[in-house]
Amino acid sequence: MTTDWKSVRLFPIPSVIYLIHNNVQFATLMYVDTSTYQIMGNLKIVTTGILFRLFLKKKLSNLQWMAIVLLAVGTTTSQVKGCGEASCDSLFSAPIQGYMLGILSACLSALAGVYTEFLMKKNNDSLYWQNLQLYTFGSIFNMARLVVDDFRGGFEKGPWWQRLFNGYSITTWLVVLNLGSTGLLVSWLMKYADNIVKVYSTSMAMLLTMVLSVFLFSFKPTLQLFLGIIVCMMSLHMYFAPPHMLVDIPPAIKSDPESLVNVLVDRKTDS
Amino acid sequence: MTTDWKSVRLFPIPSVIYLIHNNVQFATLMYVDTSTYQIMGNLKIVTTGILFRLFLKKKLSNLQWMAIVLLAVGTTTSQVKGCGEASCDSLFSAPIQGYMLGILSACLSALAGVYTEFLMKKNNDSLYWQNLQLYTFGSIFNMARLVVDDFRGGFEKGPWWQRLFNGYSITTWLVVLNLGSTGLLVSWLMKYADNIVKVYSTSMAMLLTMVLSVFLFSFKPTLQLFLGIIVCMMSLHMYFAPPHMLVDIPPAIKSDPESLVNVLVDRKTDS
Repeated sequence: MTTDWKSVRLFPIPSVIYLIHNNVQFATLMYVDTSTYQIMGNLKIVTTGILFRLFLKKKLSNLQWMAIVLLAVGTTTSQVKGCGEASCDSLFSAPIQGYMLGILSACLSALAGVYTEFLMKKNNDSLYWQNLQLYTFGSIFNMARLVVDDFRGGFEKGPWWQRLFNGYSITTWLVVLNLGSTGLLVSWLMKYADNIVKVYSTSMAMLLTMVLSVFLFSFKPTLQLFLGIIVCMMSLHMYFAPPHMLVDIPPAIKSDPESLVNVLVDRKTDS
Repeated sequence: MTTDWKSVRLFPIPSVIYLIHNNVQFATLMYVDTSTYQIMGNLKIVTTGILFRLFLKKKLSNLQWMAIVLLAVGTTTSQVKGCGEASCDSLFSAPIQGYMLGILSACLSALAGVYTEFLMKKNNDSLYWQNLQLYTFGSIFNMARLVVDDFRGGFEKGPWWQRLFNGYSITTWLVVLNLGSTGLLVSWLMKYADNIVKVYSTSMAMLLTMVLSVFLFSFKPTLQLFLGIIVCMMSLHMYFAPPHMLVDIPPAIKSDPESLVNVLVDRKTDS
């Protein structure tokens, strides 16, 4: 268990990145509508691939790069609005600041992910000790904000810890449980798998949710959902399948040892 | 130049396949609307791949199969109707006969293509002699139909050859010139390239037409056109790029001939 300050001081960094990221997200939403915002969210897949390559020094084959682009295209395709839906032709008409902020947001999100992976993998500390450091700093940042709000409001409603669970219903607790479990699973993914695996998981989860919505809430299936699923499945296979399952690799020339002996002995005796 | 009946008698077969195909197309349009019809047309890409493999015995790698499916998905994506366009939610609601006929149509179209490739490649005859045979039979079939129509109509409007060019304007002649040149180019493709190259060419031509329409006729570009183009480009690269450009193939183990000599000589002298 690494407890020296030189290691611990790295753990607030993801919190800081997420802090900036959240503010950039709100700024983005001032310029673009929600569907454009959702579509731009898929850029994160590509930026994660790029930062994964740059900062974690993982090499990807050309085919894997293509798979990452296809995953982003596939998830986007599945989100293209169906016919007759309102406000869906505003996609290319947002101000340029909206797109710039969207790209910045995708970079920050990828940076936080890649940095977390670096933290989780840099030593053999227990996952729980690493999570404790990560979330303690997150909690401190959030508490600081609550205290600032209290001071600004002049403690009219009392200190924040007296109102922390106000309005919590069973649904609220289920949401907390859900987000908490997701956090644990994601940190497990970061330590034992990597950011690209996470990107594939979240994309597949999104598609699964859309398919389940068709059955559970009788959403209307669109052709683009179907096309997006095919593209994402192809991408999954392209990224993770071993190369010899994808292309016909010429077999290494097998030599018969005995014939080699003869040939080479001959040459030896000649010289 | 092969002129014996055993070779010439194979040339009417594509005409017969196209004859059936045209009638199946009209039957399909009785069940489905034009946009569903256009979308189903992309199935031809996949059936061409299958028949190309089955009848021409060309082996494709898994990645090449995936590329073919992605090409079909990409062209379909680019054709998905934009928001607010009328009659575009009827895609999954046509009667089952419509879809069955669409699949049959895709198979017939692929069969005609694959058979033509077989004809063009089976000997070293000049392309022009092969085309002459192909189109002569096509013309005979069409003339037969015109004669039948004349008999049915009781020659009220005179024989067909007197009305053959009625209503031809400069535009009509340009269309004839265009279709004629296309026919020559396609037969060249079939002889010196193959059906898959043709499928890629026609898909790329369709996308280029859509992009040019955006600039020339100020069509509104859709997000799905952009996504479709990316998918098709990836597919193109996956199909045609040499494997070593896509995946990292482990280099063949290079052996130092001199050390091999020593080792093997030792073994030889031991025994």
